[in-house]
Parts: sequence; structure tokens; C-alpha cells
Amino acid sequence: MTPFPQTITSPILLLDREKCMANIDRMVNKAERYGLTLKPHFKTHQSTEIARWFRKKGIDSATVSSVKMAEYFADSAWKDLTIAFPVNIREIDRINRLAESVSLSLFVIEKETADFLKDQLKAPVRVYIEIDTGSGRTGLRPDETAKIDSLIGQFKDSGKLRFSGLYSHPGHSYTARSKKEIQSVHENVLSIMQSLKKRFRDAGPIRCCIGDTPCCSVAEDFEGIDEISPGNFVFYDLMQARIGSCDIADIAVALASPVVAKHNSRNEIILHGGAIHLSKDFLAREEGQSFGIPVLLNERGWSEPIPNCYLRALSQEPGVLACSKRFFQSVNVGDIIGILPVHSCLTADLMREYRLHPGGEAVSHMKNGN
Amino acid sequence: MTPFPQTITSPILLLDREKCMANIDRMVNKAERYGLTLKPHFKTHQSTEIARWFRKKGIDSATVSSVKMAEYFADSAWKDLTIAFPVNIREIDRINRLAESVSLSLFVIEKETADFLKDQLKAPVRVYIEIDTGSGRTGLRPDETAKIDSLIGQFKDSGKLRFSGLYSHPGHSYTARSKKEIQSVHENVLSIMQSLKKRFRDAGPIRCCIGDTPCCSVAEDFEGIDEISPGNFVFYDLMQARIGSCDIADIAVALASPVVAKHNSRNEIILHGGAIHLSKDFLAREEGQSFGIPVLLNERGWSEPIPNCYLRALSQEPGVLACSKRFFQSVNVGDIIGILPVHSCLTADLMREYRLHPGGEAVSHMKNGN
Repeated sequence: MTPFPQTITSPILLLDREKCMANIDRMVNKAERYGLTLKPHFKTHQSTEIARWFRKKGIDSATVSSVKMAEYFADSAWKDLTIAFPVNIREIDRINRLAESVSLSLFVIEKETADFLKDQLKAPVRVYIEIDTGSGRTGLRPDETAKIDSLIGQFKDSGKLRFSGLYSHPGHSYTARSKKEIQSVHENVLSIMQSLKKRFRDAGPIRCCIGDTPCCSVAEDFEGIDEISPGNFVFYDLMQARIGSCDIADIAVALASPVVAKHNSRNEIILHGGAIHLSKDFLAREEGQSFGIPVLLNERGWSEPIPNCYLRALSQEPGVLACSKRFFQSVNVGDIIGILPVHSCLTADLMREYRLHPGGEAVSHMKNGN
Repeated sequence: MTPFPQTITSPILLLDREKCMANIDRMVNKAERYGLTLKPHFKTHQSTEIARWFRKKGIDSATVSSVKMAEYFADSAWKDLTIAFPVNIREIDRINRLAESVSLSLFVIEKETADFLKDQLKAPVRVYIEIDTGSGRTGLRPDETAKIDSLIGQFKDSGKLRFSGLYSHPGHSYTARSKKEIQSVHENVLSIMQSLKKRFRDAGPIRCCIGDTPCCSVAEDFEGIDEISPGNFVFYDLMQARIGSCDIADIAVALASPVVAKHNSRNEIILHGGAIHLSKDFLAREEGQSFGIPVLLNERGWSEPIPNCYLRALSQEPGVLACSKRFFQSVNVGDIIGILPVHSCLTADLMREYRLHPGGEAVSHMKNGN
């Protein structure tokens, strides 16, 4: 019988279980070392099977990014879930159903939302206030202390909203380009969270949670932090390698892409592997954009990145791989090339299934199939 | 009963059937006017239901971007399909099964692929040679006449590969920023295709097909062209509006996105509507990037774009909408805002279902659900 990966016919997302387990182990150990509760963000893998790999390491609470994702993991015995997204009040019926079977934590940063939940929730839930420690996207600014005070007051009065603490996803760590720069973001985040924790200590015990892969991967000081909820580290990707969160060798997923054409005059290969497989996230390069870099698949896993090659352009289905002359000449139509993704969360969300490599066994995804 | 769209709870992709039908009508009429066979590209909508809207206008052949998509439409009585993607020889078993029930056209530009198909095909198929008229992605350059000659020879010898003609997707029309610039790309494409048609006339009757939405929307000269296969025009999007292919009022899809938070200090709204709903395709702006622009939903459809507002940033689930002060003040947490997408093909591929607006009826997608 032909061994995997030679039997691959169409684009599939390969998952190196060993690399993935090593990434999980490293984060679990770090959390233990610093007395942190690890509530891994499952939005990256969206897989009950991969969730079980965490469970085997003693993890029993997790973070998700939507009510739908919470429902999916609740169905598979995850009974402590944080929906790390400002409550969408239109989903109240589903939130109420979830709260019946799960210890649920929500994010509330709006007075209107707190009022609405007080009125509409059927059972108590825990709530975090999200803090914008510098990313400029979601969360309250650290100086909005009056608003935080007022929210905490609303929670108390509601009888249903139990204040858990403060959460921050320091998305600005993604602009870092070295461990040192990550470290500097982290120190700043730490100091903001510590001072808020002190400022609001009268509200009762406050848990502080941070949730980005760069800081959680690199930092070795978590004073004042109680919980971490990184997600991407389970697979990592080229973006994280560029940021400084991981080595390229830690990346645990690769898109298996068939070679469908070769353009001799420009040393470019056309792959079946495009925007609907990898996503349009890219890394800036001097020469333009890179949507991924190639590796050679073998029966044990995959090689280091092939030097001087990168995915230069993506259309809906095809990808254009700019190659070194040497690599170009070694490739034939019908070969399968692995592509390390720029952003593994989006690639996994698009591919909606994993195949273990080596081995070829399917690993489910919440949005399975197609 | 609460009328649609007030019943929306989570991000869904709204489809304005009237706009979509008008887009279809316009292209069908243009094809008729110029004696062109319209083989619409179904990769944009990926829906048998929307395909039926074409069928009702007399269209009975179509273009797809993968073997999987061909299988899907073949199952719903589409018996003349072109897979507009270089043959992936690893999918030969599925290609052979397809060719049993469908009049199938393939793209072949590699000697190795032609050899392989000669050997492995069980029934004859039609083949196009793809020409790169300037996009620099896939297809043979117009000056590779020796290679084209040689491929045509291989087709003849094979007994299975019936040479249909030349196909070009002038992807470089996407860099145009006015009808005039589209027109200039089109004239160049036309002249290349005409001269190739003449050059290879001894090979028998050659059909020339072009397949981009900008040229097919704007051009009024199709001399030498026999077929057109645009796809995106069925919905259009902000990218096409910027290119000059359509008006913003022609865009037939909008992402319904719940408002989950408001940031007063910066007039920004957080929407549930992110990269896994819209895709990361963006339009460059002076101030940065735009991932979509907002419209107000009403019971008949949606408004013109709200002035001075745009989706400034996307994470996996949330989107950050930069607003005019006036619009910001009019919006409440829990409202639903429509977002016109930058690239409707990718948004539809991500959302995998449509809801008619007005009405709310579900319209299926090949990758339905979730």
C-alpha cells in the first residue's frame, strides 16, 4: 500500500501531533511553574479531539470566541468555558441554555449589556471586564476607572453577574519582531494589570487573565497574573515565528498542496492551495508579500523551510510559489508540497479538518468537512 | 411576529435577490447581444439554488474552480462544466468519474499532464490551453507558441483530449481603477487572443474564452471572443466597485453583523463580524486598510453606504468599525449593521450559506452550514 503522504490527492491540512503535543506541554508546564490557571483558547484548533490532548495534561477549563464554539465544546464535556468576546445580547437564548450545563464566563464592558443580562439571564454567570492594554481594539482603557467602578457596581446589584476579574488580550504584541520587543509589551501589560488589580481590590478577589501567544510564550514573569488563555501556540505559524514567539520548527500544521503547473521562465510553481485554504493573511517582505513558505513532506513529517522560496500570490484556489532555481528544477507536476501558513487560526478555520502526519488519520474540526 | 432582519442574532450573509438577478440579467443580455456563450463561473456563489437562477435565463453550461465543485454542480444536473484550473493529475479518479456523466472541459498547459491524461483518461474530454494575457499568474505566455503547438499536437495524438480553444483570466484587470483602465486592459487582451486565434487556426475551430468580471462588465467589443466566464459579477463587491466594474448599489451581498460594544473616546464600534466571516482581503485607504463599509438594513434591503465609516481592523471574530461621530451616536449595542464585503467570493466561501433579504429564507451553499 502507498504510504501517507503519497496518497494525498487534494489540499489537506497536515497536523504534526508530536510538535503540537510539545507546544501544549511547554505551555502547560509554564503555567504550572508560575501557578497560573491555563485556560487555553480553543478558537485556533476548534477540535474536540485536540481539546482532549489538553485534558490529558490536566486542563479542564478553556476559552472560546463565540457562543457557537462554546456550545460545541460544552457538548463534549467541557464544563468551564469563557467566551472571550463582548456579549452579543441577541444571543441571550443560547447563552441561557449554555449556562444551564456549563460554568460560563462572559465579557461585559457595556452598561446596556449589564442591564440587559440582569433582566434576561436565567442563571448566574461569571463576568470579566476586558481591558485594552494597548491593542486599541476591544476592551476598556485602563484610565476608564469610573466606568469599571460603575460596571462592578452593576454586577453586584444584578444578583446574577459574578465579577471574576480583568482580562486582556494584548494584541499589540503582534507588532513585536523579537523576544525583547515582546518582553517590553509584556512588562507594560503586567504593570497595567497589577495596578488595576490594586485599584479595584475592594471589589473582592480579582483574577487577572492575559491571553496572547507572544507574551505567554516568551515571558517569565507573571506577577499579579492568575490565568493565561493563549490559543495560537497550539500550532504556531509564520507570523508567530516572525514575532519571536516560536521557532519555525515548532509550527505544527502545513497545507499539503498539489503542484499543477510550472513556469520555467520565472521559476514559479502553481499549487492547488489558495485563499480558500490558507487565508489572505500575509507577511510583508522586501519583494512584496509572502502567504506561506514551502517544506518538503516526508514519511516522518516535513523538512526545514526550503531556502529562498515563498508563496508570492494567492487567488481563490491557486497559489503562486516563487522558487529558487534549484528547488524549481527538483519539482514535478503532481508532487505534493507542504506550505507553512502565515496565520494558522484562519487556515484551520478554512480547512475544517486535520490529517495527522505521519499516519493520515483524520482529526475533527467544529466546522468539519468540505 | 418580528420581521426579518430584526430576528437576526448572529453574523449571517444577506443576499439581495433583486440586485443579484439584475446582475445576472445584465450579463446574460450582454452575452446575447454579442453572440457570446456565457459560461458563468460558479466559484463565487457555489450554490445550486443561485445556479438555477442562471438556468432560468437559458444558461446551461458553467465554469468551476475545482473537481469538488464540478462534482457538486454535476449532481444537480449541470452537464456542461469547465474546470478553470490546471489539471491536478492526482485527482484522476474523480475526473474519470465526472467525465462519465458530464461534458467536461479541462485546462492543460503541461506536457506531463497531457501525457498523463492520454494514458489515464477513460473517456474523451475537451481541453483549453490557458493563456497568461498579462496577469503573471497561471497560463502560457502568448509568445510560447512552440509550447502551444506542441500541446495541440499532443492533444491530437492522444485520441482523448479534444482541443476546444484558448482561455484567459485577465487577472491584471483587477489593478484597474476606472472603466477607462479596464477598457485598456481589455483591448490588449482582445488583441492577444485574436492574434493567437489566427496563429493557430490550422488546428481547427478554436474558441476563445475570457473570464474576468471587470472586462466582461465594462467592455462593449468582443471581436474574436466566443465565450465569457465571469463569476464575481453575480454579487460584485467593494473591490469591483473600486476597479470600476460596478456601482456600489449593484453589490448583492452584505454581512449582517451584531454590535457588541461601543468605544466613545474613538467613535469606534465593535461588531461580531471578523476575518472568519469576511476574509482578510482589504482595500488600501489613505488612513490604512478598509475591510468593508457599513450600510443600514431595513425591511426592503439596505441603504447606501454610511458616509465616512469603514471597517478598520479585523480579528478572527470581531471587526472594528471606524465611524463618523453622527453615525456612532445613532447606533446601540444589540443593533445589526450590514457590511458590504471587499471580496464577495471569499466572504461567501467563508459564510457557506445565504439568507435572502428581505424575507430571510436560507439559500444553500456547496459547503453549507457552520
